[in-house]
Amino acid sequence: MSTNDYFQSYEDLEIHKLMLADSERNRAYKDAIISNKAEFSGKAVLDVGAGTGILSIFCAQAGAKIVYAVEASEVYKIAEESVKENNIQDVVKVIHSKVEDVNLPEKVDIIVSEWMGFYLLHEAMLDSVIVARDRFLKPDGLMFPETATLYSTPCSVPSMYDFWENVNGVSMTHLGMKLREQASQKPVTEIVKPESILADPEVVIWMDLREVTLEDLDSIEMRHVAIANKKGKYQGICLWFTCTFPSKFTEPVSLSTEPDEPPTHWKQTTIVLPSSIGVEEGTPMAYDLALKKSQDNSRRYTIEVTMLDPSEVEHSEYCLCHMTKCILVRAMLEKYEKDDVEMMGDK
Amino acid sequence: MSTNDYFQSYEDLEIHKLMLADSERNRAYKDAIISNKAEFSGKAVLDVGAGTGILSIFCAQAGAKIVYAVEASEVYKIAEESVKENNIQDVVKVIHSKVEDVNLPEKVDIIVSEWMGFYLLHEAMLDSVIVARDRFLKPDGLMFPETATLYSTPCSVPSMYDFWENVNGVSMTHLGMKLREQASQKPVTEIVKPESILADPEVVIWMDLREVTLEDLDSIEMRHVAIANKKGKYQGICLWFTCTFPSKFTEPVSLSTEPDEPPTHWKQTTIVLPSSIGVEEGTPMAYDLALKKSQDNSRRYTIEVTMLDPSEVEHSEYCLCHMTKCILVRAMLEKYEKDDVEMMGDK
Repeated sequence: MSTNDYFQSYEDLEIHKLMLADSERNRAYKDAIISNKAEFSGKAVLDVGAGTGILSIFCAQAGAKIVYAVEASEVYKIAEESVKENNIQDVVKVIHSKVEDVNLPEKVDIIVSEWMGFYLLHEAMLDSVIVARDRFLKPDGLMFPETATLYSTPCSVPSMYDFWENVNGVSMTHLGMKLREQASQKPVTEIVKPESILADPEVVIWMDLREVTLEDLDSIEMRHVAIANKKGKYQGICLWFTCTFPSKFTEPVSLSTEPDEPPTHWKQTTIVLPSSIGVEEGTPMAYDLALKKSQDNSRRYTIEVTMLDPSEVEHSEYCLCHMTKCILVRAMLEKYEKDDVEMMGDK
Repeated sequence: MSTNDYFQSYEDLEIHKLMLADSERNRAYKDAIISNKAEFSGKAVLDVGAGTGILSIFCAQAGAKIVYAVEASEVYKIAEESVKENNIQDVVKVIHSKVEDVNLPEKVDIIVSEWMGFYLLHEAMLDSVIVARDRFLKPDGLMFPETATLYSTPCSVPSMYDFWENVNGVSMTHLGMKLREQASQKPVTEIVKPESILADPEVVIWMDLREVTLEDLDSIEMRHVAIANKKGKYQGICLWFTCTFPSKFTEPVSLSTEPDEPPTHWKQTTIVLPSSIGVEEGTPMAYDLALKKSQDNSRRYTIEVTMLDPSEVEHSEYCLCHMTKCILVRAMLEKYEKDDVEMMGDK
């Protein structure tokens, strides 16, 4: 069989090359699995969307009794060969199937899966992981990863704004505007430098993978009243995610795609705003963010950002922004605290 | 008119973004043009494939009387806006046309163009530049760039070989082999580290852009008997190019995509060999390289590499390889030189 028959396109294998070259991704899964040898030893494992098989092989290295490596695409053939060349064909069973259609001879103790897409949910296969969990995971079975958290916060996007003001001495702001128009149709997947982040992030969704349901994923909404922690240009909303793994007997292992951490192939995802807004330290920036599953393609989400007037939304009780109402609340809280301390001193 | 009508695809503008973010590319053209103000002042210039217009604007900044910015794609609209926002609409005339179909009111003193593709010639528009030159350039007119040179030399390709031997403790050599099979259909565009280069490069083609003809580009062939300058793994043939600009009155400016230089969006192009060959310092590595224009698509080339047995091809007179015949020739040459010196000493 020729290479051309193996895969739909040149790009199919390139994507796997890109993922396997992501050493942060590999390291996190390997650390999480190998440090949990006590949990894997002698156990049955299901790898949902096994791809080239690397996670299944980690599980075998950690002492699993059997690993069901389920992969729907033609790349399952690579997984079969990977398993053979690592001499663990007695442990890892590669199964060419959608996990929704597969029949396993037993329930499993652990499910491992690398299902995360751009901004966690893009073209993601979390639905399949949930179906697999509900069909095949024993009660009290473990999920690798165990939790996933999506964050958002305001940021600068120099590649879409400032860069175009002076390209080697040439003003190209019209092109910048056109690029932003296109970006409004499709969020930007680009490395965001830590210094471009303008405020503490807020959680968009936190998921316990042992419990999250398909319904939980239909529509995800959050409101963020962010407070600028420095002077800057508010030009976009940056999204990233972190995952944690079970750590009952081990140091916690996490996989983080936040701007402060080493880069991954997920980079960060940025929703670019139509115009740049100057902010000072303490300026409130308020928005609603909604991720909704497409009606016509359940693998896709539409992302909606609604800019809000910070004076018309409720701020947190301890808001540090520079708006009068929050300054007054802070002053009152400080006074109460002082009174409390004085009252305690009086006793 | 909506964004969607402007461009065929999201990718159209992304490519221009990528090119304009290539600061080495911009810098080379800007330096070459601005340092040649004496040549541009009061002159007529043609920009072939003007894209977003940046080169045309550099020419206006250098004092050109008029710049004809010819662009066939819809991106000409971006060029028009760029020209307006830099207030040089009196100098730069954006023309939406193929250069083959355009009529200019005069011959020009200078042609500028950024026509180089991956490995110089891929999907390149040099043909159009040659047609434009023959139709519109005055005798003794200048070409920016003036020369282009394509080089090749043996290299290691760790991303296609060594990497797959140990991916976080997992052997994935079968996947490596599949990736190499795919790479045999399509050369790899990737940054090659200087330490992966195994021998001095050889010129594949050197072009004087004032004289090169369409026929010169139909078929390009070279033979290289390269000598390993260190121990290593011979796994591919690396291609890169350099361009130079007119420098009658200035320091020479060049644009180089060689591995030793800062990276550009062209990166390097590597033809991956089907197997890895260990070499020692002094090992000869011989190959024929041919670039042939496709019959069915004159914008594309097929690249053929033929590995040669170094013992069956002619080595250079001064070859430093470790083959017996070259060691003997070197010994003889050294003896002659010594004899010459002694004879001169005898005089």
